[in-house]
Amino acid sequence: MSYNEQLNTSKRVLMGPGPSDVHPRVLQAMSTPLIGHLDPEFVQIMDEVKLMVQHTFQTVNYLTFVVSAPGSAGMETCLVNLLEPGDEAVICIHGVFGGRMADIAERCGATVHRIEAPWGEPIDPVQVKKVLENCDPKLVAIVHAETSTGVLQPLDEIGKITKDAGALFVVDAVTSYCGVPVKVDEWGIDAIYSGTQKCLSAPPGLSPVSFSDRAVAAMDFRKTKVQSWFLDLSMIKNYWSGAKRAYHHTAPVSSIFALREAYRIVLEEGLENRFERHYRNHQLLKDELEPLGFEFIVQPKYRLPMLNAVKLPEGINEAEVRRKLLDDYNIEVGGGLGAFAGKIWRVGLMGESSSPNHVHMLSAALKKLI
Amino acid sequence: MSYNEQLNTSKRVLMGPGPSDVHPRVLQAMSTPLIGHLDPEFVQIMDEVKLMVQHTFQTVNYLTFVVSAPGSAGMETCLVNLLEPGDEAVICIHGVFGGRMADIAERCGATVHRIEAPWGEPIDPVQVKKVLENCDPKLVAIVHAETSTGVLQPLDEIGKITKDAGALFVVDAVTSYCGVPVKVDEWGIDAIYSGTQKCLSAPPGLSPVSFSDRAVAAMDFRKTKVQSWFLDLSMIKNYWSGAKRAYHHTAPVSSIFALREAYRIVLEEGLENRFERHYRNHQLLKDELEPLGFEFIVQPKYRLPMLNAVKLPEGINEAEVRRKLLDDYNIEVGGGLGAFAGKIWRVGLMGESSSPNHVHMLSAALKKLI
Repeated sequence: MSYNEQLNTSKRVLMGPGPSDVHPRVLQAMSTPLIGHLDPEFVQIMDEVKLMVQHTFQTVNYLTFVVSAPGSAGMETCLVNLLEPGDEAVICIHGVFGGRMADIAERCGATVHRIEAPWGEPIDPVQVKKVLENCDPKLVAIVHAETSTGVLQPLDEIGKITKDAGALFVVDAVTSYCGVPVKVDEWGIDAIYSGTQKCLSAPPGLSPVSFSDRAVAAMDFRKTKVQSWFLDLSMIKNYWSGAKRAYHHTAPVSSIFALREAYRIVLEEGLENRFERHYRNHQLLKDELEPLGFEFIVQPKYRLPMLNAVKLPEGINEAEVRRKLLDDYNIEVGGGLGAFAGKIWRVGLMGESSSPNHVHMLSAALKKLI
Repeated sequence: MSYNEQLNTSKRVLMGPGPSDVHPRVLQAMSTPLIGHLDPEFVQIMDEVKLMVQHTFQTVNYLTFVVSAPGSAGMETCLVNLLEPGDEAVICIHGVFGGRMADIAERCGATVHRIEAPWGEPIDPVQVKKVLENCDPKLVAIVHAETSTGVLQPLDEIGKITKDAGALFVVDAVTSYCGVPVKVDEWGIDAIYSGTQKCLSAPPGLSPVSFSDRAVAAMDFRKTKVQSWFLDLSMIKNYWSGAKRAYHHTAPVSSIFALREAYRIVLEEGLENRFERHYRNHQLLKDELEPLGFEFIVQPKYRLPMLNAVKLPEGINEAEVRRKLLDDYNIEVGGGLGAFAGKIWRVGLMGESSSPNHVHMLSAALKKLI
């Protein structure tokens, strides 16, 4: 063990399912000497970050802020604040993260109705409609970009069906956010969470979230306390909003500095340009990998541009090649998760890692290795 | 709103209840380009950090790691993993943070027996003994350093009483850790949590924790799932320990880089030297502030060296002077919390902020202001 030595990491190229590469400006902002979490200057920074979260979620939701913990805590924030024992919840599962939502919803004491699709395929709105005819759920939850399968789930139709059924629409946008359009208001999303380490290209550890007025009203009507103190929005909202900010917990000041800079870079590029860039580099990756014998497992129209799920050419030992990519070329790609473990790769082209140079580095190294 | 401008914060001197000043080495380590959260190099860094957490908690506990969220999430981690509906819990309350533990324990479905002491005083072991004669709790929880009152709670006697009663001993060491001795094994502590932004002088956002084998056994005997997925140790332990690390959530890589460097600085100084330094600067602060008319509210033998709770001289508008300290001298001190709001100051001398220079800057500025 060598903790007596200075930190000495390899210079990796991050092309897995996150974290993605981070712009030097973000690292520099993060290393700014700290200020207090109730300092008037920090409160202003929180307000600025909140505006940028609203802008990137394309929402005017008042209750929009950043959870002081990673994306999975954002997921839990949405579910524990909306669900209480006795509620029904419809959870759509087409990969690992839908399954995680169902697990959390059950821990909230909710009765969960599962709608499943085969891994690699999206959920069919017709199925959602059918299930909603036979139950009365408080919410319908679905993953927009299934990081375990590479599927982009169309949301507008399921959003309408959910609204017609009088349920709240909860969306996981961890991987899609800032890489493809996420239109919270237009799509009728009532609660949404994301992560910072994917297409936003900030370090991991925070979760941007947003809640519609309908969601806030549902929270106001709770009969029981939220089971998590740390994630209880009835308290956190007084730290992130309002004239007098009340202490709840000590915000991760440095991570918020970093996040602010990452958002500034997103807005300088512009959301539409950013989406186009993600799509363009995904096409380039496809053009480079298919001739090498890689197969995309998702149909073209449901393919995520930032998370490319590919089957390897026949006879390749995936773990060995993946390890060589890391050891010999410092390139990280992701292995399969859950049902896909050992069977696929997940190649991330997220945020700063979505560039022609990244694609070229990977394809050139693969030509040497396989 | 000015998010189109580069981050531009004042150079603060942090002498509140945390965050404390951070050493430039820690900021530099934090700004290291990222590596993946499952990268073999990152796994080694986690192992190194774990060893340093054990060393500083003075424990050999196997289940020792860092929660990916601030101290309050560490508190919740301890309580939600140990308590389930129907359990009894004895919670000692001598300030804000004991009250928070009681709130969380109730959210776990536990029946809470409260033992209270007046603000500014420690809990009396005799009281604990009496309460334990009339109930059969799963755990007794207490705050070691009450950040809201400045009280250092002696733990060894209450630890013995708790053990004799067959209950688990849960300790909040958020503010005491790395500033005064915290002897997990010697004092029979079964679950402990801290924060990184106090005497450890790392940025806020993480919570070092440790669990005894007795605590682990109690978790293994749970009848119900832990109500928080994000904080469920039965899953997290497979990410932080064992031969094959299983993905649970994306660890806050950059914050762990920073934490590693902060621990290295603690170990280079040595725990005993660090404790002495905290005590010495506390004495200096006392020598400087008392002649100005400040009064320490806690009896000398229970005074925290790193968090000095003081009444202001008669006739001083505390909020106004505190604001002037910040605006004119860039010095942050903390106001009162809860019952002490508007009545006291909390002057932090924690980690890098525990130095003669810090004391001198504060006392000189105060001489000008009051």
